[in-house]
Amino acid sequence: MENHTDYISEDVNELNKHYLIIKERYDEYKNQNMILDMSRGKPCPEQLDLSTEMLDILISDDHLKAKDGSDCRNYGGIDGIPEAKELFSQILEVSTNEIIIGGNSSLNMMYDTISRAMLHGVYGSGSQWGKLPAIKFLCPSPGYDRHFAICELLNIEMIVVDMLQNGPDMDTIEKLVSEDDSIKGIWCVPKYSNPDGITYSEETVYRLAHMNTKARDFRIFWDDAYTVHHLTKPDQLKNILAACKAAGNPDRVYMFSSTSKITFPGSGIAVLASSEENLNFIRKQISIQTIGPDKINQLRHVRFLKNIDNLKVHMEKHAAIIEPKFDMVLNKLESELSGKNIASWNKPNGGYFISLNTLDGCAKDVVNMAAEVGVTLTKAGATFPYGKDPRNRNIRIAPTFPSVKELETAIEVLCLCVQLVSIKKILSER
Amino acid sequence: MENHTDYISEDVNELNKHYLIIKERYDEYKNQNMILDMSRGKPCPEQLDLSTEMLDILISDDHLKAKDGSDCRNYGGIDGIPEAKELFSQILEVSTNEIIIGGNSSLNMMYDTISRAMLHGVYGSGSQWGKLPAIKFLCPSPGYDRHFAICELLNIEMIVVDMLQNGPDMDTIEKLVSEDDSIKGIWCVPKYSNPDGITYSEETVYRLAHMNTKARDFRIFWDDAYTVHHLTKPDQLKNILAACKAAGNPDRVYMFSSTSKITFPGSGIAVLASSEENLNFIRKQISIQTIGPDKINQLRHVRFLKNIDNLKVHMEKHAAIIEPKFDMVLNKLESELSGKNIASWNKPNGGYFISLNTLDGCAKDVVNMAAEVGVTLTKAGATFPYGKDPRNRNIRIAPTFPSVKELETAIEVLCLCVQLVSIKKILSER
Repeated sequence: MENHTDYISEDVNELNKHYLIIKERYDEYKNQNMILDMSRGKPCPEQLDLSTEMLDILISDDHLKAKDGSDCRNYGGIDGIPEAKELFSQILEVSTNEIIIGGNSSLNMMYDTISRAMLHGVYGSGSQWGKLPAIKFLCPSPGYDRHFAICELLNIEMIVVDMLQNGPDMDTIEKLVSEDDSIKGIWCVPKYSNPDGITYSEETVYRLAHMNTKARDFRIFWDDAYTVHHLTKPDQLKNILAACKAAGNPDRVYMFSSTSKITFPGSGIAVLASSEENLNFIRKQISIQTIGPDKINQLRHVRFLKNIDNLKVHMEKHAAIIEPKFDMVLNKLESELSGKNIASWNKPNGGYFISLNTLDGCAKDVVNMAAEVGVTLTKAGATFPYGKDPRNRNIRIAPTFPSVKELETAIEVLCLCVQLVSIKKILSER
Repeated sequence: MENHTDYISEDVNELNKHYLIIKERYDEYKNQNMILDMSRGKPCPEQLDLSTEMLDILISDDHLKAKDGSDCRNYGGIDGIPEAKELFSQILEVSTNEIIIGGNSSLNMMYDTISRAMLHGVYGSGSQWGKLPAIKFLCPSPGYDRHFAICELLNIEMIVVDMLQNGPDMDTIEKLVSEDDSIKGIWCVPKYSNPDGITYSEETVYRLAHMNTKARDFRIFWDDAYTVHHLTKPDQLKNILAACKAAGNPDRVYMFSSTSKITFPGSGIAVLASSEENLNFIRKQISIQTIGPDKINQLRHVRFLKNIDNLKVHMEKHAAIIEPKFDMVLNKLESELSGKNIASWNKPNGGYFISLNTLDGCAKDVVNMAAEVGVTLTKAGATFPYGKDPRNRNIRIAPTFPSVKELETAIEVLCLCVQLVSIKKILSER
């Protein structure tokens, strides 16, 4: 069966034959003027429709006061209304005292947390990070490009750490943080990681919480973006805040999450969860930074999402829409690429991405070839600090936004490109 | 007529008599357990009711796309939807290219603008402000306490400049900025200033735009918070961005405004207006800081407020609610204090405050005495950098939130306290 031809061990003539056949299929797409965008993890319109009735949930006749009696229409309150804290305390399994509700963007809360650390230090640090000669962050990679962009903007040196099947390479991390006190942080997407779809194991969480760090103001930036975003059987993630407390490092972690991919990206609500000491330290600064977050939008969200049980039902509706898209991608990768020994990919239980690894040195060419026929993928290299994938092999596939039909075409194109670039590479090395 | 007794020239016996009569009136309030808060410039519930139907304006059946075709429910866009830019371009009289729409808080946009300057410098500055040995801001005072708090948080040294009847003391400002290149900015509330209610004259705006600054990266932080918030006949304010362009200093000013006191404080939309060069510089950073502002709330606002003409009608409704409150305060001050030579106050044509000046050295005692009978005023000193009013005389009255009836009582109490503290002071100096 052709699909199971191992290209690596195939002879030159056969490879050339394959190339021509595949090239012909690729060329057919050239004249179709396709515009298919799989570059970002965006919900599709059908997913957004699931939340559109949230717009009807808060109208002028409604009671617009929060549980604490505050008029949500007016000034007052800098860290969220009680009912929003309760909802997120259920989602993140932390106490309501360990929560600050923010604006519409958890990325913005992350940036703010780091920029405040640069300008004022963190709780217990005694020094502004920005005044130190160097600040470094560990960046498990492939990872989320927007995390890396924040470090780059703030002149924070990034150290690549490999992602393994149970999370980042803990042996390397433990060694690095124990030796270098300029390493102040680590980026983590611990559940259904971006882009690998990996959920950190219990041991990984335990070791992150317990490890000895030379910097006493080391912080874990725990971007739990996909915590309720299951596709199939939910992965279980150990609670990092509890683990840090148990390890005697209660202030080590900042957890972030949002409703961006639950309700509306850009019009959701974001959250920071951390120790009460960390939050008290931050709250003083936030009360000067802003007049407080949008309480009406919090009320709207809480009245729509209600509680964790109702939220789970809501997330199943998301899964019902996007799981067929993940299946389409996985089936297509399987039928076009499996057995050929030129690519590998993950099968995530949740999240927004499928991570595809080509042969070393091929990713950029694949992404460029796909772009030439109108299929836009996330820029090759984007999943690594400074946009530099050392093996030039990782491609992030974001299946949620296009339709299943569009995806079928897009992944077919992608698979053709992977094969063409791989064969070229294999032939050039013979 | 007793009201017109000049306390300063009154003899001791008469003053003592006055004191006892007034003290008796004050003591009557002691047992009333009043709780009246005039500390912050908050709209009252009736004002919020003016905008509550905005909650009905965007429902699930509505077209949720912006003019540029973008789905307001999804990711995308970091500086605002076109129709929101159009609305604010009418309000601020700048081009839509000179506008970035932000989140719910213009204060937050100001903080962000300064913290970005600390971390990255400003357009054309070449250096991060935070790396310089010292940064100073000019602070026309009395002024807005939250502006000063931002400087204090960021370790920016504040230099007090007197507010005069046409705006800040320009002679002093011109001298200071021409000599000291560590002076990087000035805070301005140019229309119906907080707390004096002063609108900068054409000459003041002209001189701010034209003055020579030793720092080539000097910036004016133009907090045009009350630009459409007239009480009676609108004051006219010269357009600072146009003035800066005409002066050959196109990048000198950042203008800020919001709908906080038009629709809902905390759930409004904020704006930054500046030169295209400034905005291009900032936009690159914003695109890393956040996934973008809440576009649904922008759409909601634009569909509710529509355009500048409709907005003016809306603001007249605000004025109809709060003007009687300002009148009550002014009438009461007039009837209780005028002619006594112990206090002076402004009569603003718009904005949110009435500024009361006592005899030197009396403000703190007055505010404390009022607090003892349950009337909370803005902390004395709050209208000056570091909370230190050098003459200890300025008291900010925020008349909008309490009812007219509550105000009547509160201002009566305030006037009694002013008289008691003043007589004590006069007697102690005889």
